[in-house]
Amino acid sequence: MSANTSLLDLYLDATIIANPVERSTVIQNIVNVLKEYSLDKKYEIKMSDGVLLLLTVENGSLSAVLRTHLNGLITLTLEEGSSSSFLTNIGVEELRKRLNKAVQKRVDRIPILKRGLEVPNYFSSSDERIFEYDFDKLVFQADSPFQNVKILHSPTFGNTLFLDDLQNLAESDLSYTHGLMKYGELSYKDQEILILGGGDGGLLHELLKEKPKFITMVDIDQLVVDACREHLRGACFDSLDKLKGDNYEVIIGDCVKKMDEYMKEGKMFDFVFSDLTDIPIATEPEGELWKFVKKIVTMALQVLKPRGRFLSHATGIGCVDALQEYEKMLRKLPTKVEFRSHSAFVKSFLEKWVFYEIWEI
Amino acid sequence: MSANTSLLDLYLDATIIANPVERSTVIQNIVNVLKEYSLDKKYEIKMSDGVLLLLTVENGSLSAVLRTHLNGLITLTLEEGSSSSFLTNIGVEELRKRLNKAVQKRVDRIPILKRGLEVPNYFSSSDERIFEYDFDKLVFQADSPFQNVKILHSPTFGNTLFLDDLQNLAESDLSYTHGLMKYGELSYKDQEILILGGGDGGLLHELLKEKPKFITMVDIDQLVVDACREHLRGACFDSLDKLKGDNYEVIIGDCVKKMDEYMKEGKMFDFVFSDLTDIPIATEPEGELWKFVKKIVTMALQVLKPRGRFLSHATGIGCVDALQEYEKMLRKLPTKVEFRSHSAFVKSFLEKWVFYEIWEI
Repeated sequence: MSANTSLLDLYLDATIIANPVERSTVIQNIVNVLKEYSLDKKYEIKMSDGVLLLLTVENGSLSAVLRTHLNGLITLTLEEGSSSSFLTNIGVEELRKRLNKAVQKRVDRIPILKRGLEVPNYFSSSDERIFEYDFDKLVFQADSPFQNVKILHSPTFGNTLFLDDLQNLAESDLSYTHGLMKYGELSYKDQEILILGGGDGGLLHELLKEKPKFITMVDIDQLVVDACREHLRGACFDSLDKLKGDNYEVIIGDCVKKMDEYMKEGKMFDFVFSDLTDIPIATEPEGELWKFVKKIVTMALQVLKPRGRFLSHATGIGCVDALQEYEKMLRKLPTKVEFRSHSAFVKSFLEKWVFYEIWEI
Repeated sequence: MSANTSLLDLYLDATIIANPVERSTVIQNIVNVLKEYSLDKKYEIKMSDGVLLLLTVENGSLSAVLRTHLNGLITLTLEEGSSSSFLTNIGVEELRKRLNKAVQKRVDRIPILKRGLEVPNYFSSSDERIFEYDFDKLVFQADSPFQNVKILHSPTFGNTLFLDDLQNLAESDLSYTHGLMKYGELSYKDQEILILGGGDGGLLHELLKEKPKFITMVDIDQLVVDACREHLRGACFDSLDKLKGDNYEVIIGDCVKKMDEYMKEGKMFDFVFSDLTDIPIATEPEGELWKFVKKIVTMALQVLKPRGRFLSHATGIGCVDALQEYEKMLRKLPTKVEFRSHSAFVKSFLEKWVFYEIWEI
């Protein structure tokens, strides 16, 4: 890393910010604390909601932006070119305590952000919370005709697959696959199964252990399958080594087209799994996410035998609105369905993920 | 939340930054992109490693600091007073793409940071990586004579105990307790056990299930015990409801003093657990962490029966130096010991935690 950013939040009262005299006193107190770090005011701008100050040390190597907000918050953002001097968590905690003393109000410190990391490590949860991973190596990266495919290595999660920078599956994520399968609650023995997506091979590997009659997996992206066969073996094991076995076949193709064919042929399954990425990949211009998601579940229900089950992952438990929207969509399907949701903590997602079991009534 | 901060990193070449003409061209390209967002240059400072620019929109409500770094990195930090306008992950992703097009080099986006959160949600891992939790409620907060005690609620982890803002245990963290116990590998049946710390009651509860002869737990902080009895019941269950039972006793006191007494009495145990916080609490001025850690393990070994086991948590697997230091310390103890380490992924820590089993030889 080659630069650090540190954020501090000072929780003052709105009345202090609204009153120019009080505001200027409190800002002077903060400026005085920053002066102890050789930060001097260089520029000030009046804003609709108060003021914005730029402070730097003499040679500019450490800078700070201080700004007020109408609700009483004062944000302070420090930046430094080198990681070797002031901007460490210990150093900023000391500053936080001094600021706390100076303003006599709550002051929060957000842990140091590292800029210019060699291996990308900042990603978000489904509900847009930031996580800093411990990826130490870019194992694989390439662009397929459909998406950017990346595999990063982490000491905590093993190799981890990203599609268009969205977290997909890590070698540690058996709980994801078991969550999707409702492991232990449903029996796959002698069943006919269709997997939509699932190119990482994790679900295929786990389902094969259950002695199904036949699994057909349809993933659009050859590159994902090839990359996972080589670099995600802790999830797919040997299940992608051959694309066709006694009781399974991996088809590289568009699952929508494939389901169309199955409908025409009258081919039906006991279980259909949706293991597509959150942002779905369609070869036709399908429009937005919801349209596509609805299309998938509608088609899947049509290739299900009576009493068959559609199993799908949804999103993180924090995405309350999206989950409600999904259930609303299920209730409005052309076919009348019942559904049950369940959740599992997925290590590399660092969140609880929600899954659905859906069936026609 | 009342403000947002967004960080972008542009990976240029060091030679571009070193050359004033090339540098100024590339900066002009970036400034032109920012102009599309009504951000205008307000102030510029020459630095030892290039330049620092402050840009704002007319009324100052959106601001940006752009700075160059000698290794070729250009950091861009945007801040905005309201969460309702430009600074969303989707909005900034669009900007990232435009910058990427303008500079024709890698541009990374760090997910939006939320300023002024009502419930504190930014904490770090043991190796100082930032995590944004989903705490939605401050369940309990008070200062004891020893530390700040906080219990926060998360939909993902349940209630979670923080001591001096350090993550201690969540109701979801059975893997921590089982890791510390080497669950399934060691037998506690009919054994005499001493727990140092452990005020959250998680370890006490799990050990009681194993039908030990007697457990003595010595925690210094009555407030922790009281708070966990009420608010961390998913970890301690009913084990803290009474401080004394048929086969256990919870003593509120200093475990160092207590071990001194045991040594004088000649009282010994089959197992001693160290379940003290990372930053240890000593009533005497013990000096730094390592001195205290060494003292604890030295004393614990002295109150262990022959073939007894000392079990301790250490830190996250990312803290390679600290773990090496710990093992170095173990090798230099006055008593000759052997040890084995193992690890477990602790959900609410969002990292793998390392534990030690130590015994005299």
